[in-house]
Amino acid sequence: MQLLDGKATAAQIRLELSEIVKERKLEGKKIPHLAAILVGNDGGSVTYVGAKVKACEEIGFESTLIRYDDSVPENVLLAKVKALNEDKSIDGFIVQLPLPKHIDEQKVTLAIDPRKDVDGFHPMNLGNMLIDHPGFICATPLGIMELMVRNNIKTEGKNCVIIGRSNIVGTPLSLLLGKNKSPGNCTVTLTHSRTKNLTEICRNADILIAAIGQPGFVTADMVKDGAVVIDVGTTRIEDKTKSKGWSLAGDVNFDEVAPKTSYISPVPGGVGPMTIASLMMNTLKAMELKGK
Amino acid sequence: MQLLDGKATAAQIRLELSEIVKERKLEGKKIPHLAAILVGNDGGSVTYVGAKVKACEEIGFESTLIRYDDSVPENVLLAKVKALNEDKSIDGFIVQLPLPKHIDEQKVTLAIDPRKDVDGFHPMNLGNMLIDHPGFICATPLGIMELMVRNNIKTEGKNCVIIGRSNIVGTPLSLLLGKNKSPGNCTVTLTHSRTKNLTEICRNADILIAAIGQPGFVTADMVKDGAVVIDVGTTRIEDKTKSKGWSLAGDVNFDEVAPKTSYISPVPGGVGPMTIASLMMNTLKAMELKGK
Repeated sequence: MQLLDGKATAAQIRLELSEIVKERKLEGKKIPHLAAILVGNDGGSVTYVGAKVKACEEIGFESTLIRYDDSVPENVLLAKVKALNEDKSIDGFIVQLPLPKHIDEQKVTLAIDPRKDVDGFHPMNLGNMLIDHPGFICATPLGIMELMVRNNIKTEGKNCVIIGRSNIVGTPLSLLLGKNKSPGNCTVTLTHSRTKNLTEICRNADILIAAIGQPGFVTADMVKDGAVVIDVGTTRIEDKTKSKGWSLAGDVNFDEVAPKTSYISPVPGGVGPMTIASLMMNTLKAMELKGK
Repeated sequence: MQLLDGKATAAQIRLELSEIVKERKLEGKKIPHLAAILVGNDGGSVTYVGAKVKACEEIGFESTLIRYDDSVPENVLLAKVKALNEDKSIDGFIVQLPLPKHIDEQKVTLAIDPRKDVDGFHPMNLGNMLIDHPGFICATPLGIMELMVRNNIKTEGKNCVIIGRSNIVGTPLSLLLGKNKSPGNCTVTLTHSRTKNLTEICRNADILIAAIGQPGFVTADMVKDGAVVIDVGTTRIEDKTKSKGWSLAGDVNFDEVAPKTSYISPVPGGVGPMTIASLMMNTLKAMELKGK
């Protein structure tokens, strides 16, 4: 069993990006600039946005954090999105989800210029991904693909089973892995809550990806010997041994599954850091696509 | 074995649409108007566009056919697309593919206003389909879903195997069938040229959909007893017994497969007529979405 060390892989990507930034600075070129809008004080959101800003600083990207109170009216948020669309100094930006209930998330996502939508949530980017046209691929699926590539996981002709069909992980990942390219060319089965014989289906997987947010859902009996297992779960569970009072739990029962696998990604330190690294890659791409 | 009679189902849809048209006429409301651009004289394209215009006539939709010679410059075609986008009398339009090599199909598809893109090929519509937002679903996948619904094929919890991952059939269909809605909730496996053990995978399918364009590809040994088999293939093969000199061949070896199935769609008379009926449904929807 080998660990798919997302923390180390993401650090390597950040290092490569920082080299690009250094070179651009020497050449007097523009430095990528990511903006993030954060509404309210949700613990998870504050942590994620903080990690994104920190990654920018480490790489040398410029970053701007825009914070609003929970009570911010929708039209104020939409006006800010419009302003960021038009601001030439900003290459890409994200609006951290979830948003308070009085704000229509779909409306906000649609308001973002697809050319600056580095989260890849805009329908235009999802559609471009589907037909393999240039655009932004959502950060988590992109991070998982990158984690596999950089650890030399072969995908061609492999049976891949994905558990969970969310719009931002399971479904786009099923498209990416099934594409006629490298990485890709998997035979993908997308499973979900209505799937029958899930255990049997999973046992056929050369590559098994769990993305449902149910701690410990994947047990040893669901995993084929020698399979590659990728854990996208990041559920916060109470943990009094930690000063923050919680720790992250994956969808895979790591202790019993790991010994059966050829590769397995841990939680934390697997897919999570790769998601942030992907956002950075998308921000650089956003700038490059503008021809700068 | 029961036949999934697309011809009869499509006729029923056309009848329903014609009733809607009659009612709208009585109420003095706008009648849906579909335009089609046809470039050149490719036999298949001429036939398909002709069938679309004929369907409009039968239903009572208005239709406009715009023809160009093979040598039409790209900018002339793009100007026409722009004019159709702006023409308020046109609810939806299609540009029949393929286009001559000197014209960039992607550029043309992107030039179509997604709100008039009744073929559903624009990335914006593909993306909206992925996240289940309002938009147009490509005509063939939509027709297959409708064919199943109107023949009471249950999809929830079924294993569905799709052979062929094209952007306009296999891939979008995999998304539609996997969605958390009805019809939908299938466990979908999307297979292709790099899939290993295809026969074994197909034999697990409760619903088997062939969309690769290889006549007779699906043989009896690939089909589970009692499966639903849908044949999307429409390859023209030489046939001297026909006055036109060819006939359509499906991807399924019908004679040997049919006896094993619970339902099977024939070629011709299965998915083909449903595709055109779906285009008509999309055209009505385009008009309705404008609030007319």
